[in-house]
Amino acid sequence: MNVTHLIKSRRSVRQYKSDTLSPFQINAILDAGRWAPSGLNNQPWRFVVITSADKRAGLAGFTHYGKTILSAPVTIAVFLDMNAAYNRDKDLMAMGACIQNMLLAAHARGLGTCWLGEILNRKDEVREFLGLGAHLELAALLTVGSARRAKRTGKRKDMKTLILART
Amino acid sequence: MNVTHLIKSRRSVRQYKSDTLSPFQINAILDAGRWAPSGLNNQPWRFVVITSADKRAGLAGFTHYGKTILSAPVTIAVFLDMNAAYNRDKDLMAMGACIQNMLLAAHARGLGTCWLGEILNRKDEVREFLGLGAHLELAALLTVGSARRAKRTGKRKDMKTLILART
Repeated sequence: MNVTHLIKSRRSVRQYKSDTLSPFQINAILDAGRWAPSGLNNQPWRFVVITSADKRAGLAGFTHYGKTILSAPVTIAVFLDMNAAYNRDKDLMAMGACIQNMLLAAHARGLGTCWLGEILNRKDEVREFLGLGAHLELAALLTVGSARRAKRTGKRKDMKTLILART
Repeated sequence: MNVTHLIKSRRSVRQYKSDTLSPFQINAILDAGRWAPSGLNNQPWRFVVITSADKRAGLAGFTHYGKTILSAPVTIAVFLDMNAAYNRDKDLMAMGACIQNMLLAAHARGLGTCWLGEILNRKDEVREFLGLGAHLELAALLTVGSARRAKRTGKRKDMKTLILART
């Protein structure tokens, strides 16, 4: 599957089969995130891999979208390490590049993902729940697993809206 | 080339051959950016495609890394449309996902890219130089072209540093 098809066929998956992921699969996804570009190559991303039923249930309580977390065998919590940060705008864009790499790497392996953001309303509580220090700021949760049901369609603005000028 | 190899073999390219890009190549890269995920699917990214020698020379004057812009046949200016924005942190991560898609799509086509960030120090001037309204905020410049010289190696923190916990 070429990368254009991969990029365009990725969809958020909110219902998963109970199949667990192998450590090899999980590590391959994290490794894709690891190789994202970042300003000054500061690599501010850090990961927590959550698979235990207890921890998944606890996380689910912090968001309206807890069902997605409960359904998925694996959730990857992605943190911005403020000790590595240098410019908030650029660091956040790097985090986005890192997350997108992981979504694509999972999709390339036939796995579904969902990028959860609403939970950032309670990011400090999530950090404390995971026992992490205040220098770690939650950027996103990614659920990962075999899709039970996937949206077929995706909508995007047309190119004329997006291209402001050619000069 | 599988996506893992694509992700891991991408490097910043700062010296380009004079070969121009076809409109088809440019559009394929923008289309990859267009299909990035964003919070509430707000798709806040907007693009300006710069190929004219005059405009490239003007842009080059706004950054210490102007040589890279002068060397590349194409520069894509990526803007955050504040009229589409809803949450700055999430919007910036979406911009990063969009940019990473474009870097990967270019690399998959054998093209080199460089994600330029230092120019954000003068983002308002760049916006005005391109004749755009104040609701458009420069997020990055991406240079694109056939690599004349590419770095062979890339360095990343090891996985033990990045994985805070498995739980």
